[in-house]
Amino acid sequence: MNRIINNPDLVVEDAVRGYLKAHKDLVAPTDNPRVIRHHLAPQKGKVGVVTGGGSGHEPAFLGYVGDGMIDAVAIGEIFSSPSAKAFHDAFVAADGGRGVACLYGNYAGDNMNVKLAVKQAAAHGLTIKTVVANDDVPSAPKSEPQKRRGVAGEILMWKVGGARAAEGAELDEVIASAQKAIDSTRSIGVGLSACTIPAYGKPNFSIEDGMMEVGIGHHGEPGVKVMETRPAREMADLMLDHVLPDLPFESGDDLAVLVSGLGATPVMELYILYDRLSEVFAERGMKVRHPFIGNYFTSLEMMGVTLTIMRLDSELDRLVGAPARSVGLTKVAL
Amino acid sequence: MNRIINNPDLVVEDAVRGYLKAHKDLVAPTDNPRVIRHHLAPQKGKVGVVTGGGSGHEPAFLGYVGDGMIDAVAIGEIFSSPSAKAFHDAFVAADGGRGVACLYGNYAGDNMNVKLAVKQAAAHGLTIKTVVANDDVPSAPKSEPQKRRGVAGEILMWKVGGARAAEGAELDEVIASAQKAIDSTRSIGVGLSACTIPAYGKPNFSIEDGMMEVGIGHHGEPGVKVMETRPAREMADLMLDHVLPDLPFESGDDLAVLVSGLGATPVMELYILYDRLSEVFAERGMKVRHPFIGNYFTSLEMMGVTLTIMRLDSELDRLVGAPARSVGLTKVAL
Repeated sequence: MNRIINNPDLVVEDAVRGYLKAHKDLVAPTDNPRVIRHHLAPQKGKVGVVTGGGSGHEPAFLGYVGDGMIDAVAIGEIFSSPSAKAFHDAFVAADGGRGVACLYGNYAGDNMNVKLAVKQAAAHGLTIKTVVANDDVPSAPKSEPQKRRGVAGEILMWKVGGARAAEGAELDEVIASAQKAIDSTRSIGVGLSACTIPAYGKPNFSIEDGMMEVGIGHHGEPGVKVMETRPAREMADLMLDHVLPDLPFESGDDLAVLVSGLGATPVMELYILYDRLSEVFAERGMKVRHPFIGNYFTSLEMMGVTLTIMRLDSELDRLVGAPARSVGLTKVAL
Repeated sequence: MNRIINNPDLVVEDAVRGYLKAHKDLVAPTDNPRVIRHHLAPQKGKVGVVTGGGSGHEPAFLGYVGDGMIDAVAIGEIFSSPSAKAFHDAFVAADGGRGVACLYGNYAGDNMNVKLAVKQAAAHGLTIKTVVANDDVPSAPKSEPQKRRGVAGEILMWKVGGARAAEGAELDEVIASAQKAIDSTRSIGVGLSACTIPAYGKPNFSIEDGMMEVGIGHHGEPGVKVMETRPAREMADLMLDHVLPDLPFESGDDLAVLVSGLGATPVMELYILYDRLSEVFAERGMKVRHPFIGNYFTSLEMMGVTLTIMRLDSELDRLVGAPARSVGLTKVAL
């Protein structure tokens, strides 16, 4: 595995330092090296928006700190939750006196550390409320939503929560909008190859050539089925067959659709997939109002793709479409 | 090689169709399926800006059609020049009555086809002028600039030419600014793994594990040296040793710096590289005013990175920083 790294045990430190140097117009360091804040945070009178997660998913999570998005991010080791201390310090970095919305993904480590951090912050007089993303359909049955992982749907949750906070909403309103965002969102991933954490030096799971893992997680968590690869059109149909009936999405729905490569999949293949997805949406009477195609939430150099679909009401439509500026996602007012 | 494709011989058709469906707010089809135009092109009274090149480099080339950027793009097969007909039809799609600037890269096929297309367009009364990017330092000695390839420096050339045209400049002014842009720009690539064109089914070159190819081209063209991989800091120094003396870049220079992954390299590694690059710029008294870090110009799923540096004068600084909106690059006015 040929890599552009120095010490394999310090890839996060090195990358974060480079990130801070590259994006001074967006972000700034804090006293905690595992917390990055918006360069203007905390913004007095604005509800703070925080997220956090493991590294190796870039541009997630730190790439979504920006205008109309995230105010501070807690950064973990590769594929590992940030510490409770990092979440706590991110809350402090984001708190402008009107409370903080912590919008994160459903993983055991993150749940535990966020809980601890919220308790600690409360002891210091901060008000933190949380929304836990659980958009990944294959990770558990619909009857057990608390067992479902958060995946790329988090991006749309951050977009909605960040836009609502930027509008000047109260903490409870930001939380309500972010909760509605993730409740209206479903995702599925398909893995085509594994990836290697630099400090391990070899993949910690495997996908045979010619095979694909349907429902794979962002860290190689097992999916629901390993099967032979098939043409992109059939992959698209298979993904939709899992995702559409779950909410369920229905004729007449307005959608935001996010197709993210997992790292090594060529961008042109994401468009090949989208060509079919788009056809099916049209056939079923659904309208894609906000398409996002690119590498939004990766897993190092994994090959594969995730599909995320959000059903829009007028509020979500407005918030997803609101102006934003970050490394991972920029929306320009038209 | 696990891919998300339908027919390997139709990947460009399928991807372009998906692209057009995804980005209706930016682009529109033309009668030629290998030409995409800005959704408002041709814009009467504005100099048109055109580029073109092979597919497999996404978001280049089609991803740079947008506001303040490219008006029409000619699309080739994977790693192959667009046809003369496609360049011609892109000129027609972009021509708003004040002529067209064709800003493209120095490759035999593109040179031939652009030349033919310009002649044909002239016969129809269109005025086309060209700038040929040759920013790739390792591809030929400084004494033979006409032999140097165009690589990721093309993006900064498009940015400058597109912004100048958006300001309302005359064709000759757009050409002069774009020419200055590329004359002020130098690049180098380092390859860490090969890539596979779907229709071939196997790599057409190879890089052994543990080795890197310094000076590799965007299509696997041989570099100047194959050597063992080394830490990111040393890679950065090696790249700078080729690029900085060539212009030469000097203390006091203001820079635009573009670090692009070649497709499969994790984004965090680009920041690890940038951390050292940034350190050297500071040591040498150079100031990075516009950093671009990401997957701006790829080669399918090749691993590796390209470094592009532009010396800014006040005009280039203004034009690189001007607002723009495209899939590949968006600048927001601050």
